[in-house]
Amino acid sequence: AVEHARLRSMALSNLIANIELQYGKANYFSTGLGARPIQGITSPTLSPKAAFLKNIYHRVVAPKINPPLTALQTWDEPGDCWCAAPDESRSGKAQLGIELGEPMYPTQLTIEHLPRSSAPSEDIRSAPQNVELWVKTDEPAMERFAFDGERCEDGPEGWQCLGKVRYDRNGANHVQTFLLDGEAQEPIKKAMLRVTSNWGADHTCLYRVRLHGKGLRPIPENESSS
Amino acid sequence: AVEHARLRSMALSNLIANIELQYGKANYFSTGLGARPIQGITSPTLSPKAAFLKNIYHRVVAPKINPPLTALQTWDEPGDCWCAAPDESRSGKAQLGIELGEPMYPTQLTIEHLPRSSAPSEDIRSAPQNVELWVKTDEPAMERFAFDGERCEDGPEGWQCLGKVRYDRNGANHVQTFLLDGEAQEPIKKAMLRVTSNWGADHTCLYRVRLHGKGLRPIPENESSS
Amino acid sequence: AVEHARLRSMALSNLIANIELQYGKANYFSTGLGARPIQGITSPTLSPKAAFLKNIYHRVVAPKINPPLTALQTWDEPGDCWCAAPDESRSGKAQLGIELGEPMYPTQLTIEHLPRSSAPSEDIRSAPQNVELWVKTDEPAMERFAFDGERCEDGPEGWQCLGKVRYDRNGANHVQTFLLDGEAQEPIKKAMLRVTSNWGADHTCLYRVRLHGKGLRPIPENESSS
Ligand SMILES: [K+]
Ligand SMILES: [K+]
Ligand SMILES: [K+]
Repeated sequence: AVEHARLRSMALSNLIANIELQYGKANYFSTGLGARPIQGITSPTLSPKAAFLKNIYHRVVAPKINPPLTALQTWDEPGDCWCAAPDESRSGKAQLGIELGEPMYPTQLTIEHLPRSSAPSEDIRSAPQNVELWVKTDEPAMERFAFDGERCEDGPEGWQCLGKVRYDRNGANHVQTFLLDGEAQEPIKKAMLRVTSNWGADHTCLYRVRLHGKGLRPIPENESSS
Repeated sequence: AVEHARLRSMALSNLIANIELQYGKANYFSTGLGARPIQGITSPTLSPKAAFLKNIYHRVVAPKINPPLTALQTWDEPGDCWCAAPDESRSGKAQLGIELGEPMYPTQLTIEHLPRSSAPSEDIRSAPQNVELWVKTDEPAMERFAFDGERCEDGPEGWQCLGKVRYDRNGANHVQTFLLDGEAQEPIKKAMLRVTSNWGADHTCLYRVRLHGKGLRPIPENESSS
Repeated sequence: AVEHARLRSMALSNLIANIELQYGKANYFSTGLGARPIQGITSPTLSPKAAFLKNIYHRVVAPKINPPLTALQTWDEPGDCWCAAPDESRSGKAQLGIELGEPMYPTQLTIEHLPRSSAPSEDIRSAPQNVELWVKTDEPAMERFAFDGERCEDGPEGWQCLGKVRYDRNGANHVQTFLLDGEAQEPIKKAMLRVTSNWGADHTCLYRVRLHGKGLRPIPENESSS
């Protein structure tokens, strides 16, 4: 009974946190604000054939063949996610490029996966683990905080890494928001999510990623308030 | 920390209120109950060209070109709304006619907009401010309460105003339910929402409107309970 | 005020329970996990003509003509459900066959209907009342608990009944989860929901049904945790 009360209190706590996130800050990866995947720098999508073979030998949650756009949208069911095809290393590396609808300064990244306890046999090995956020700019990122995190891996020229975060598949909340260590020196229009490892599958799926930060315009006065 | 606790408590309070609204009373503007916009008395929709020009000069949230029906449906993202084209006054006037699926007596109106804090730069100037609810009937409305609100503006013949309400873009809850002052003397089948002013944009967007009230049939007994 | 506090506390309690259900256990009737209706053993769908006649004589919530798949999916509005055509008895009998995406052992069944208070005139006579869960297997079910429920009605050969439950349209929560009395002796791939009575309409509608239980694979170790 104590355990049950603790679980309920945690469920409530997560629920409030997730509602506050949804209503309390703008998401610049929102398709409603014009964000779109950039095909040229996004991993290929897990193909029907790969998915079929995988199901025969090693079934996890049946991957639907959704396009990268799916990773920017809300979800209802297991499989409402984008899955990248495995690369040669088969270690779950995946890359998602995103063009924003309007320029901004990123400060936080949110990553969301199917909650472990709602997956059959609690199998979410295709969840991301280490994730880097890169942005397109020539100006090196400034460090926002005393840097104590892991360094990002090497990335392409003309891009800067703003932070390396770790999605915890055992976390109390399946929606996890991370502060970015680095600060862009100019407003950015293109971002790139690089999953450098996952939780054990040969491919990685993304249910939803969100980006928060500061827009360019001043907050409007209540000029029309009556 | 006190401020944070207060915000969490408010988020929870709003969450419960919104769930109670969703599950606790019928919404006669629900498309599932047969409600549909009436084209002839609904403002034209903001056109792609107007939207495009607007984005060049004065970007707010990118308006998608959704039909008036969108204002009756649930939403997920910024832009999942219906935006009326500006009229000559460019003061945000907008009109939405709705045919109900079944006749009823209106008692309450719910208006919902994108929460201010989830819009980039908190810019929701296209939110409605003063809104009137009119219904199609020849019988003048009775006043339900001692009348202390503002009078409605002039309206078309054969329609009666049941109330004038004010949507507060700074309100604690982005879902706001208003008691209607006037009472229809016969069940109504057609309603009209008239936005007479907004919060500063040259056009108005509606995320969701709902209508509550009394249906015509008696509440069924538990005749089949076993 | 005490009554209102009680209602709010109940709303919160239900909300947490429903969130825990959604995130806390796998739903093997999820289309995302590959579940699909089995046409041959599913009742015909309420036809447009029947729906039209019904509306003339005895209007309940306007039934949309949704396929059986709708009963496995989430819903937003009244009418986002599957309605079975009335059989000759016109007592609301309905049958829904479901092929699972992967074999499992069922332990619980969840039934969800439009909340009574959100239906016009609180009319949800088409909600299910007595519901049996059958599974395709030749092995007789073992009784999980000391059996004190009602026996199932007769069913087809090669199927076993795992439980008979009663959906309470007056229940505090419109999402109701039931423990199944019977235990399958082998993993099952096909299930069948048999509604043997409803709450007074001549046909039955299902908003959403879910199935919970044990999968076949071991819960993965945290083999990749770093
Ligand atoms: K998604
Ligand atoms: K909407
Ligand atoms: K449904």
